[in-house]
Amino acid sequence: MPQINFTTLPGIPLVKDGDDLVEIILAAAAQADLTFADGDIIVIAQKIVSKAEGRLIRLADVTPSAAAVALAKATEKDPALVQLILDESSVVMRSKPGVIIVRHRLGHVGANAGIDQSNIETEEGECALLLPVDPDASAKMLQQGLQAACGVQLGVLIGDSLNRPWRLGTTGGAIGCAGFQVLNDQRGGQDMFGRELKVTMINRADSIAAMATLAMGETDEGTPVAIVRGYAPDADGSSAADIMRPLEEDLFQ
Amino acid sequence: MPQINFTTLPGIPLVKDGDDLVEIILAAAAQADLTFADGDIIVIAQKIVSKAEGRLIRLADVTPSAAAVALAKATEKDPALVQLILDESSVVMRSKPGVIIVRHRLGHVGANAGIDQSNIETEEGECALLLPVDPDASAKMLQQGLQAACGVQLGVLIGDSLNRPWRLGTTGGAIGCAGFQVLNDQRGGQDMFGRELKVTMINRADSIAAMATLAMGETDEGTPVAIVRGYAPDADGSSAADIMRPLEEDLFQ
Repeated sequence: MPQINFTTLPGIPLVKDGDDLVEIILAAAAQADLTFADGDIIVIAQKIVSKAEGRLIRLADVTPSAAAVALAKATEKDPALVQLILDESSVVMRSKPGVIIVRHRLGHVGANAGIDQSNIETEEGECALLLPVDPDASAKMLQQGLQAACGVQLGVLIGDSLNRPWRLGTTGGAIGCAGFQVLNDQRGGQDMFGRELKVTMINRADSIAAMATLAMGETDEGTPVAIVRGYAPDADGSSAADIMRPLEEDLFQ
Repeated sequence: MPQINFTTLPGIPLVKDGDDLVEIILAAAAQADLTFADGDIIVIAQKIVSKAEGRLIRLADVTPSAAAVALAKATEKDPALVQLILDESSVVMRSKPGVIIVRHRLGHVGANAGIDQSNIETEEGECALLLPVDPDASAKMLQQGLQAACGVQLGVLIGDSLNRPWRLGTTGGAIGCAGFQVLNDQRGGQDMFGRELKVTMINRADSIAAMATLAMGETDEGTPVAIVRGYAPDADGSSAADIMRPLEEDLFQ
């Protein structure tokens, strides 16, 4: 029977600015006696990619603009945090006390431009963690590094927890991808009875990210890396950017 | 290492009105030499639950109202289909040629009230398949039937493909659940550094549904049942209805 397996990788240390995630992941895999195989998809939490890329910002270093101060007042949030949210966004879509929903410059719509304030080391004061500058490029780089070291074909997916407008609770989504087709476009194909499938396009990347993020989040310790086996990557050449619905199709701006 | 395994169950025949899904699933499992174990979550595609419950409607039997005719004209859809969409919905949220986005009476927001026209047998003419009347009740009944036959504790999840406003491609979501907590509410808990986790609530049911639906959809033949092992159900008592964001919190009505 077809099987797909999710394994969370233990032994990933706290990641710091400048760390080499390829080295860290390979060391953890070696310690866990896990060998990557052709077709594995390595899911990596956005949090450690952002940290390795130096995207942790001290709020004390941020000077809020007048617009940030006004929005912070309306939403009861820290003005420096709001400045970072505005810097990372193309448009504020909705706001109310406690909530700022924006379209991130990468296209993702959600709360706080994906800026994370949990599990951020606080030695140097209050910090916020921004998304990677170009998560698709990060995924490609990690894929190439891991493939070169292991000599196998891999997919890499950078996942983050996303909010949704009408459903409670976060689910993981893909913000960076390399090595597999993120959308399985069956439009124009036929169903079992020969009827044309008019609108079937399955989001593989978000589906894998959802389950991997759940698996990561449910363990006691932070396990920011998961290996998905049995779901072979296919032709390369697509990226998480392909997931973004074009603005002209957006009925909920 | 913690592992979660998704297996798609082969050998499920085409399901008809009145079929006993518990019997069908048990027969397929026996033929595949698969024994359900304590903690398995059985994911079942909405399509076969709806068919077994007689939710397949002949469009020729539907008389469209004036409102349905008008909306059908504006959206370039079949008036009978639009009537079914209106019957199943509490409100039409957006529409344009080719697209009707509604809030389903169960709370789910999406295209066409979840009404499916692909893979519907056409012997009796053009048909549309509605969601089950009460998918949480269906899940509970299936869970009890499967548990009674197998003597193990199981979760049951009825999954469907959902559209999303800002991301292309469908992902599976939960429309009926029994036997496990659908939302993992960590609010009020603490992260690894002692900071209060203000908003972390993970949607387990949708995450599992997303991956299971992907696994089902990627096989050549229809495989509308998947077994999730290694993600033990816990306390019962929640349902897919708990996923619905309260209307007063909806910023995208």
